[in-house]
Amino acid sequence: MSIEAFDVVDLIRTKRDGGALETAEIDWLVDAYTRGYVADEQMSAMTMAIFLNGMERREIRDLTMAMIASGERMDFSGLGKPTSDKHSTGGVGDKITLPLMPLVASFGVAVPQLSGRGLGHTGGTLDKLESIPGWRADLTNEEMFAQLRDVGGVICAAGAGLAPADKKLYALRDITGTVEAIPLIASSIMSKKIAEGTSALVLDVKFGSGAFLKDIERSRELARTMVELGEDAGVATSALLTNMNVPLGLTIGNANEVRESVEVLAGGGPADVRELTLALAREMLALAGVTDADVEGALDDGRAMDTWRASIHAQGGDPDAALPVAPETHTVTADRDGVLVEQHALPFGIAAWRLGAGRARKQDPVVHSAGIDLHKKPGDTVKAGEPLFTLHAEDAARFTRALESVEGAWRIGDAGETVQDGGPLIAERIGR
Amino acid sequence: MSIEAFDVVDLIRTKRDGGALETAEIDWLVDAYTRGYVADEQMSAMTMAIFLNGMERREIRDLTMAMIASGERMDFSGLGKPTSDKHSTGGVGDKITLPLMPLVASFGVAVPQLSGRGLGHTGGTLDKLESIPGWRADLTNEEMFAQLRDVGGVICAAGAGLAPADKKLYALRDITGTVEAIPLIASSIMSKKIAEGTSALVLDVKFGSGAFLKDIERSRELARTMVELGEDAGVATSALLTNMNVPLGLTIGNANEVRESVEVLAGGGPADVRELTLALAREMLALAGVTDADVEGALDDGRAMDTWRASIHAQGGDPDAALPVAPETHTVTADRDGVLVEQHALPFGIAAWRLGAGRARKQDPVVHSAGIDLHKKPGDTVKAGEPLFTLHAEDAARFTRALESVEGAWRIGDAGETVQDGGPLIAERIGR
Repeated sequence: MSIEAFDVVDLIRTKRDGGALETAEIDWLVDAYTRGYVADEQMSAMTMAIFLNGMERREIRDLTMAMIASGERMDFSGLGKPTSDKHSTGGVGDKITLPLMPLVASFGVAVPQLSGRGLGHTGGTLDKLESIPGWRADLTNEEMFAQLRDVGGVICAAGAGLAPADKKLYALRDITGTVEAIPLIASSIMSKKIAEGTSALVLDVKFGSGAFLKDIERSRELARTMVELGEDAGVATSALLTNMNVPLGLTIGNANEVRESVEVLAGGGPADVRELTLALAREMLALAGVTDADVEGALDDGRAMDTWRASIHAQGGDPDAALPVAPETHTVTADRDGVLVEQHALPFGIAAWRLGAGRARKQDPVVHSAGIDLHKKPGDTVKAGEPLFTLHAEDAARFTRALESVEGAWRIGDAGETVQDGGPLIAERIGR
Repeated sequence: MSIEAFDVVDLIRTKRDGGALETAEIDWLVDAYTRGYVADEQMSAMTMAIFLNGMERREIRDLTMAMIASGERMDFSGLGKPTSDKHSTGGVGDKITLPLMPLVASFGVAVPQLSGRGLGHTGGTLDKLESIPGWRADLTNEEMFAQLRDVGGVICAAGAGLAPADKKLYALRDITGTVEAIPLIASSIMSKKIAEGTSALVLDVKFGSGAFLKDIERSRELARTMVELGEDAGVATSALLTNMNVPLGLTIGNANEVRESVEVLAGGGPADVRELTLALAREMLALAGVTDADVEGALDDGRAMDTWRASIHAQGGDPDAALPVAPETHTVTADRDGVLVEQHALPFGIAAWRLGAGRARKQDPVVHSAGIDLHKKPGDTVKAGEPLFTLHAEDAARFTRALESVEGAWRIGDAGETVQDGGPLIAERIGR
């Protein structure tokens, strides 16, 4: 297609005035933007128009396919086994990928988990794994393929060649206030996952105060949109809507989340982390054609742990090495007897971020030892003086602002009082 | 105010979600954008959000005042006489500024008419005047002041120091599909006019097929918004809503529009050009405190012409010099007897533009001799073979595309048939 095939101002006006863009127009727009012919200021006006006026299902599919076409598309058909992947929209304490990948891979289903780094209050899977001495996130396509063949699963960084249009567009949306638009979120996530070449995909779409989208209605809409996109592209896709009003598990950070993941792989760990890991594993396996898998057994008998250790080894890491520990800690204790009735995910996520576990700007490093260990979860009985949570940081000066974030974010009530957001962890399943 | 006082993404989100920006936020935004701290892609997302979600009256006033504050503000209080100016939203064949300025100035009211160049199908006042050999548009502030004092009126280019934020924002809106938003149009026009220092202002707001805003309702909204902005800033302001369904007068172009303007200044000219010139002159004079002025007399007895000649002289032009004439002409004649019942402004404007009278890009030159002379107006009786209109160009190759534009843009009907858009030229007045 000629780079002058369309006038971008006409296309912006169409979307601005509530119209739909044609397939050829979307193909041209994404290509012309990737090549720099359409300027950032034009694309940002377009994304704001999309944010406010929406997109039809067909437009979202066209946008997704155009972003896939902007780069390479991986192909794991040569592996000789099914592939299945998971994507989470991100939450506080969400370390599920770490135990999930080896658990699923231990059943002979390849898990090509391309992950990202965290920005803001939700952590990134790669940041967590980089707590492990020697572990490296950047693999070549050949290394990734070899690890899928030999170990069965891999968690690594997405290469620059995958959906470059999405990378450019995401960076633009981030600075222009157009991140939270469902057509743009859905096409961004799904373009990467479809280009990644998985044949099955389970989406963990969070809702609640600590989630990217707070309302379950919007999370459901996002989930439906992504499931449709996956099915349209020939990827067996389903979604679970899961509760992110309270932190997931007892750890928020990096190294401490790895520790908790290893506990789950050893058959222990907090009940909610285990429950979600098992549910997502069943979904991933079922979509890949493996039904009736004894996923609980694979956690309890060490099979998943073996795959975990092999995958860490394969990426240069030492699964037995000591994880970094922060030199400074600050523990908050209960001021009365009672029951913990509130513990809000978002302020705890922000507190961990302020302790150094997250980054404010893309180029910032994270502090692997920083974060929060929770000693109590909503519903737990507490006694005056008992520890509620502990902050970890390299510099005690970080505690002040972290404590400010969690002020009012937890509450001890009386026995029998209703516990905040007591709904089930897994609220809904969307898919065939 | 600190350049880090606000986070632009927060402000974009506020407007995106339908909220109103605070005065301090708008002041900061305009200043930070002018200084380059807020990027073009961020401002274009903001303007699209403003386009789709609107602005309150207070926000529009704040935006206007912030754009004025981005540059210098002129002051003509030292002239010792009232000042009055006119702004037109632009139309096909709209040369009214040319006879209007000297007409009003001939009554001792100073007319500081800062004008622009044309882009697209509506011509620019400076482009038309530059048909006159020697005439120059660029004056220093001192030259402008001297001419207002000595001649009484001046039409010249707005200096770069006036509302630089508006210049930067307008260029951005032009390439991002956000030109037609009423809050942005109103603040753009009024920031320049208020900064220009006039104490009275009449707005000629066009509606109809050849106008920037087609619907009279939207034109009325724009007029009301601008009249309010003027009054809020202490400028006596009124607006006329005028019909732009058919071209104004019998000429569309540059040199030919100057010829027609001189005819009006000599007491002749087409009835519609004379009518609108007189009506706008009465408004400008009344707002400046001059009532019962014999404006018809000033056209008929040569007083306005004397001021015209003096102003052209003062800017290096020769009012007696021959104006450029195009070497190539093409006349379209009637194919039947009847009445001209349709003559649509927009296609005739586009045809003149394609003949070379207008520019596609800011840096292009205009061809002063190019344009269209109309021999018939809607309602006129025509006989088969009579000339309807004549195209003028430097290159006969231009005729093909110009003729394509006017295909179907005029129609000869039967006597008694309703003439297109036969409403009055001046539909409404808005103001105190």
